[in-house]
Amino acid sequence: MEKITVIGAGSWGTALALVLADNDHEVRLWGHRKEQIVEINTYHTNSKYLPSIHLPESIIGFENLQEALSGVQTIILAVPTKAIREVLQQICKETTLPLTVVHVSKGIEPDSLKRISEIIEEEMPPDLLQDVVVLSGPSHAEEVSLRHPTTVTASSKNMKAAEYIQDLFINQHFRVYTNPDVIGVEIGGALKNIIALAAGITDGLGYGDNAKAALITRGLAEIARLGAKMGANPLTFSGLTGIGDLIVTCTSVHSRNWRAGNLLGKGHSLQEVLDNMGMVVEGVRTTKAAYQLAQKMDVSMPITFALYDVLFNDKETKVAVDSLMSRGKTNEMEDLTNILGEKF
Amino acid sequence: MEKITVIGAGSWGTALALVLADNDHEVRLWGHRKEQIVEINTYHTNSKYLPSIHLPESIIGFENLQEALSGVQTIILAVPTKAIREVLQQICKETTLPLTVVHVSKGIEPDSLKRISEIIEEEMPPDLLQDVVVLSGPSHAEEVSLRHPTTVTASSKNMKAAEYIQDLFINQHFRVYTNPDVIGVEIGGALKNIIALAAGITDGLGYGDNAKAALITRGLAEIARLGAKMGANPLTFSGLTGIGDLIVTCTSVHSRNWRAGNLLGKGHSLQEVLDNMGMVVEGVRTTKAAYQLAQKMDVSMPITFALYDVLFNDKETKVAVDSLMSRGKTNEMEDLTNILGEKF
Repeated sequence: MEKITVIGAGSWGTALALVLADNDHEVRLWGHRKEQIVEINTYHTNSKYLPSIHLPESIIGFENLQEALSGVQTIILAVPTKAIREVLQQICKETTLPLTVVHVSKGIEPDSLKRISEIIEEEMPPDLLQDVVVLSGPSHAEEVSLRHPTTVTASSKNMKAAEYIQDLFINQHFRVYTNPDVIGVEIGGALKNIIALAAGITDGLGYGDNAKAALITRGLAEIARLGAKMGANPLTFSGLTGIGDLIVTCTSVHSRNWRAGNLLGKGHSLQEVLDNMGMVVEGVRTTKAAYQLAQKMDVSMPITFALYDVLFNDKETKVAVDSLMSRGKTNEMEDLTNILGEKF
Repeated sequence: MEKITVIGAGSWGTALALVLADNDHEVRLWGHRKEQIVEINTYHTNSKYLPSIHLPESIIGFENLQEALSGVQTIILAVPTKAIREVLQQICKETTLPLTVVHVSKGIEPDSLKRISEIIEEEMPPDLLQDVVVLSGPSHAEEVSLRHPTTVTASSKNMKAAEYIQDLFINQHFRVYTNPDVIGVEIGGALKNIIALAAGITDGLGYGDNAKAALITRGLAEIARLGAKMGANPLTFSGLTGIGDLIVTCTSVHSRNWRAGNLLGKGHSLQEVLDNMGMVVEGVRTTKAAYQLAQKMDVSMPITFALYDVLFNDKETKVAVDSLMSRGKTNEMEDLTNILGEKF
């Protein structure tokens, strides 16, 4: 039985707090909005993010970060990607104990092109950072909170830390695998949103299941190609954090990125879509970051480049998809073998 | 411009005939039901299998096999798996020219545990068999007939033959990749139906997207494990005929195997399901064949074994799924690396 603080009381942070509470850990859930914390501690609900879920009384809400972190050596970082640096700076001010930081965010920082674990290592002094673990995989928060069967991967450079997190979370409904390939896990999680946008576009164009399956499969190939060049193990992309997460994101109408792509495919402009959605569409930022990464590392990413043209160069969606279909003839295996070439 | 005979005027055979006709080939479509052939030649429709599609007049229907094969050296074999031996025997009687045989069927023969290309090589004398090519990938026939973007793979031991078939079919809507790994392409196509059944079950149990994504991902891993042991290149399972086809089959409510699984998950018995469907559910036969193959080759296939218990040992679906969730803790990469271990 461990003492764990979840930073961020959105749907995913709350669902993970539930899993930890189910496993009899002492769980502190930190959020910055007072009324939400009062609701959690008074009514044991978090109605905005997980309506109709009752939280166990062992989950205690905290608004004060110092109190939430007191005596704690393991934190789950469940805040939006762009808030991570600021939150880490606050955390470093409020604790003196070295922390194992588990992050569950998806994205690549624009401009710096850094992965989340790199940001964590950059923001935290070595004496406060024990280990970084990324927890990722195909997991809608609502389904986790309903104890529907879910599988995820815990990944860290230090396998002992990954196994420690596996032990904290694993139970009958929530199966945790380990994987030493942090780069592959983070790249797969971030870049899946590009393919989800593209899948939304083909659906918006009315192109059907064949086109979407092709996009997902060839999208996976180009993600693996970039990932391998960045030092990932290409096999990771065949696992839960690669193809598994890609499937959930591309086939669920609940996916924000898919919905944005769908509107683009139906003829709306990017500005109209962003106005309509009224929230951040992570895939748009990630497309720019991946485009920059692919150019920097000289990797062929035809789907990402076609999407970049749609998003930032006003290319028509239909023209972009059709151009993908009329590329030169390809041997599928040469292409896939090239991905593995440098690793095996 | 080539002369090609499509054997079998079902939805897939007809859709492929359309692609070939779009590419200006002379296409003969053979079927054994006279009224269907008359309809094709008189009204240029095949209303039972592809309603609302108009066929080009360059597609000629044949009821007489000898006439259909006269002067032809390339045939597309688009008949149900269990009819293949009989049809091949008829073909060998009616032609004298060596044939390039393209098959588009999915399955493993019960008892013999043979793949389709092995059956073709067994049934045809060497002087009548120029090459065997398998054409496979994520491709609903209806979408192909509507010229929606579709990608498939042509695979043969003889890459020149695969490239010849790629050239025959490739166009703006129908993109063809080549792959030398016949075993991997055939195993992926056949075994996907097992995972589609299992995905239908978890959906029938109301378990949601996380569970389904996990099943597809871990299902792919066990298919790759068996395939590698049988001599396939494990990378093939990351391609269109592996994960691509798996996605289409597991996420489409039109998939017969998914629908059968869905009814099982809702509590119906196998006999009730088969009666209700009124047609062959290929995944049931394939589960038995894969179970036998896995035992013979000593390969761990937990999903296949759980499904076998549901289908043939009256195990409750919920108990079977829950047992999959409570296996020992696993390192995802060790597992995936083991698959590749023998090849790289």
